[in-house]
Amino acid sequence: MLPAPSSSKPLESWQSIAKRTQQHRDATIAAVRSPIPDIPDLPLDSTPIPKTILTPREVSITESDPVDLLSQLSSGSLSSEDVTHAFLRRAALAQKLTNCLTELLPQAALSRARYLDAYLAEHGKPLGPLHGLPISTKEMIHMASHTCNAAFIAWHARTPASNAHILDILLAAGAVLYARTTQPQTLMHLETSSNYFGATLNPFNRALTAGGSSGGEGALVGLRGSCLGIGTDIGGSIRSPAANCGVYGLRPTSGRLPMAGMSATMLSAEHIPAVVGPLSTSLGGVKVFARTLVDARPWTREPGLVPLPWKTESQFAALEGGAKKVRVGVLADDGVVRPHPPVRRALASMAEKLESVQGVDVVPFAPLDHDAAWTIISSLYFADGGAEEKAAIAASGEPWRPLSKFILEENKNVKALSVAEVWAWTAKRDAYRTAYAKHWEDSGIDVLLCPVGPGAAPALDTARYWGYTAQWNLLDYPALVAPVSKVLESDAADASYVPRNEDDRYNHGLYSPEKYANAPVSVQLVGRRYEDEKVIEAMEYIQEKLGLPWAEYV
Amino acid sequence: MLPAPSSSKPLESWQSIAKRTQQHRDATIAAVRSPIPDIPDLPLDSTPIPKTILTPREVSITESDPVDLLSQLSSGSLSSEDVTHAFLRRAALAQKLTNCLTELLPQAALSRARYLDAYLAEHGKPLGPLHGLPISTKEMIHMASHTCNAAFIAWHARTPASNAHILDILLAAGAVLYARTTQPQTLMHLETSSNYFGATLNPFNRALTAGGSSGGEGALVGLRGSCLGIGTDIGGSIRSPAANCGVYGLRPTSGRLPMAGMSATMLSAEHIPAVVGPLSTSLGGVKVFARTLVDARPWTREPGLVPLPWKTESQFAALEGGAKKVRVGVLADDGVVRPHPPVRRALASMAEKLESVQGVDVVPFAPLDHDAAWTIISSLYFADGGAEEKAAIAASGEPWRPLSKFILEENKNVKALSVAEVWAWTAKRDAYRTAYAKHWEDSGIDVLLCPVGPGAAPALDTARYWGYTAQWNLLDYPALVAPVSKVLESDAADASYVPRNEDDRYNHGLYSPEKYANAPVSVQLVGRRYEDEKVIEAMEYIQEKLGLPWAEYV
Repeated sequence: MLPAPSSSKPLESWQSIAKRTQQHRDATIAAVRSPIPDIPDLPLDSTPIPKTILTPREVSITESDPVDLLSQLSSGSLSSEDVTHAFLRRAALAQKLTNCLTELLPQAALSRARYLDAYLAEHGKPLGPLHGLPISTKEMIHMASHTCNAAFIAWHARTPASNAHILDILLAAGAVLYARTTQPQTLMHLETSSNYFGATLNPFNRALTAGGSSGGEGALVGLRGSCLGIGTDIGGSIRSPAANCGVYGLRPTSGRLPMAGMSATMLSAEHIPAVVGPLSTSLGGVKVFARTLVDARPWTREPGLVPLPWKTESQFAALEGGAKKVRVGVLADDGVVRPHPPVRRALASMAEKLESVQGVDVVPFAPLDHDAAWTIISSLYFADGGAEEKAAIAASGEPWRPLSKFILEENKNVKALSVAEVWAWTAKRDAYRTAYAKHWEDSGIDVLLCPVGPGAAPALDTARYWGYTAQWNLLDYPALVAPVSKVLESDAADASYVPRNEDDRYNHGLYSPEKYANAPVSVQLVGRRYEDEKVIEAMEYIQEKLGLPWAEYV
Repeated sequence: MLPAPSSSKPLESWQSIAKRTQQHRDATIAAVRSPIPDIPDLPLDSTPIPKTILTPREVSITESDPVDLLSQLSSGSLSSEDVTHAFLRRAALAQKLTNCLTELLPQAALSRARYLDAYLAEHGKPLGPLHGLPISTKEMIHMASHTCNAAFIAWHARTPASNAHILDILLAAGAVLYARTTQPQTLMHLETSSNYFGATLNPFNRALTAGGSSGGEGALVGLRGSCLGIGTDIGGSIRSPAANCGVYGLRPTSGRLPMAGMSATMLSAEHIPAVVGPLSTSLGGVKVFARTLVDARPWTREPGLVPLPWKTESQFAALEGGAKKVRVGVLADDGVVRPHPPVRRALASMAEKLESVQGVDVVPFAPLDHDAAWTIISSLYFADGGAEEKAAIAASGEPWRPLSKFILEENKNVKALSVAEVWAWTAKRDAYRTAYAKHWEDSGIDVLLCPVGPGAAPALDTARYWGYTAQWNLLDYPALVAPVSKVLESDAADASYVPRNEDDRYNHGLYSPEKYANAPVSVQLVGRRYEDEKVIEAMEYIQEKLGLPWAEYV
């Protein structure tokens, strides 16, 4: 067990703790050779900068598909030391551009990389399926002997004695851990802003958020300072940053990937399960991550997991000639908050193009009371009335970040419930899940194509609508995010639109193509519970047939 | 939704409601042709009586293995009408001997049976894998347009509009529903005693309990008034009656068999999942029940279920020559309450004989703090302090049955918890589950052979130790009960035994071979989560190799 936060008055101010934490981060970054220079006069779009700072070889390595890197690492045509060094440098640069890191681990990572290179030389085979690949991780994932503060200042001295289960498996598979990334106060923002580090910015437009809560991962992977990273998701925390930063992200079904060993509040609340999952620069990276973890049979150690082996056979029937039979539902609007024009355009284009793919059926899919789904999930998120979150903030005297206030104090569904009230909400949740299962079954769809959010990455402190992601947390459906396009100048705001409700009005008011300039536009593909493999396979197929993505991100 | 119990003063006394309910039951039994006579001067052991009342053909049908019945029903060599009629008559008799029924359904069942016979004649094939087989069901399972009182007097008018999910599947598979069975007040006794019907008695010795809470099923199946019935289990409620009545019973892993549509308190409490499962006169009956339900893909309708298909391939490696490689752990004593001599004898005999079976390894398995497991599970059972149970009793003014007082009022772990306290107990539960997973993994065993309880069926109102069954509910491990032997006169009490604690003293004081005369002795075989098929296969193998059971039950 980790020590509980002290209830007595802190001996050190929160500002002093934050400053020390930043200094530690900066020192670990300064230890990367050759040092990354400070960049004066940062432009809104950071993405062209790495090519001007890094060597061509570093650029080539860090912009490779992780699947290709693994192939070269396991054959020895690339050394893990070179790959790790390249990612360390690009991650150090990403920090200067987007403020996405809590620390780098240059010495430990390079030492590990050299060990793996020696292992390959000696044994003539890789250590495992992730041999030599650098993997980044959200700070809240336990790393032995490193602090795990989960963005609460009061937790600054929490230092787990052992690794999270997921890190043990990734290390046994040959991964190199080299970077830890930022997260927001409470871990319950769709942005990333804490009193340790301030806000993490969007690589494509510094006025916009990287998303959250795994926003450090989003920005780092978006800038190719990582090709594969670990996030967590209870309402959109993998998918929001993946979408905002133009990368792939998977919220798997609960019970598939190992969860043991995290710093967070309310870890034992079962009503709405949090999950861990990947963010990656490629769909192949998402897949190798999930498959490696499942192939390790994590359920033998962690009994909350389900012993479902990773399915390698196709989840779709095939027509003669090899075309898959795929029925794609399209939910363009959840009926509560209408997505901004670029999201509607991307979905409409995909739907139109999918209609001409042999074997693919495209059908509209009506939302089933998504507003009620938000009422249920937001009533269950903080069943103690937010007491544990509030205490963790109060323990250090740190101020509340704006989106902490939004989700905990301005959220009318946060109430301290009795056990009987939790059961009553759980009954509503289960009735909704049952109704949605019937709705889905009746539609006959295999997968559902829908927005990831009500727009592309919004300006800082304005990400207030969770419905497009939290919907699938409530249902516990696997949901995959993939980049499709970017916001275009031609994505004009609809001045004549009459909003349906206050949330819709707020969201509508955020948008203009100028404010969202250059922001990635992503989509979400959803499947039924435990159909993670099917969702990935469908996205691979759609991507191939449609030539996605339709924009450049590096 | 069912109507909530009224909080105003009941218009009718509980005694009057109970009397009406008994009259209804008796009327349904009287409608069975030819009527079963009353039996004067009932002996302690009821099991010889059916052969003196029923026709030889009825005896032959009702004492057949359900797998054999299914084979003859699907070929048409037996009609469903004849089989259903035989079970109706034997069930009516079982009621007079053990008080196990809430109602019979003679008209509906015979009408259904005739439909199925006509279906087979017309189509030349059975309706499904359970074609024509009569199946009995615990009263709490929703049956459309029948009352579902869950043994609470106040709920006497609850009448669901539709069947439980499990009944829909069984009916689609060709089953005939013909009998509903008793359960105890609160559903939380390891016996079966309610203010509707009084106590359900043990077929083998009327001074002993049939077990509970699925005790009506236990007694009915034990007397061969049913060959396959539906029970539920949150602490032993399938396994206790199966063991006490000398039949097979399976508590499957949660999330495998359909749960939607039950009357009970605290239905949405997730901390300790209840499960539904079979009681049967044969292991084949258990298997066909579970497999039929899983093969129906119930997860498409009930999203809380896990889409794990039923495994038909062997779960064990085989030696040359075909002997299975099975490592059996033996836990003879949980370290808290020592089982009575007949249970110790049966387990020791099995272990000794298993050691000489080629391919089978027998190893002792030490308990891992089973006392702590009981503290955790009993703290989570009634997280509202028992408020919902107490209100359901109070609403009619019915008196508390002795074991309701025991589990709700004398149980020091029943407290009204806050949400934060529920989370704290959930964390303890998960830590215990993780420790047990390691303990099991380290032992290398495939399955665990252990007692089902601290003795055979005890005298009425004395079943107070849940540890041997509730242990596996806490861990959510599949657990199968099978009959092995009976209590023998030679199973002498150990007069020199010095009890370890108060529970052990109480249990030790219950025993003498005379008091437990003729009681079945059963064992429990346990596997890891979701290894239901493996447990069944191992028991089939053990049964075959050891020539089990070693006693006659009919």
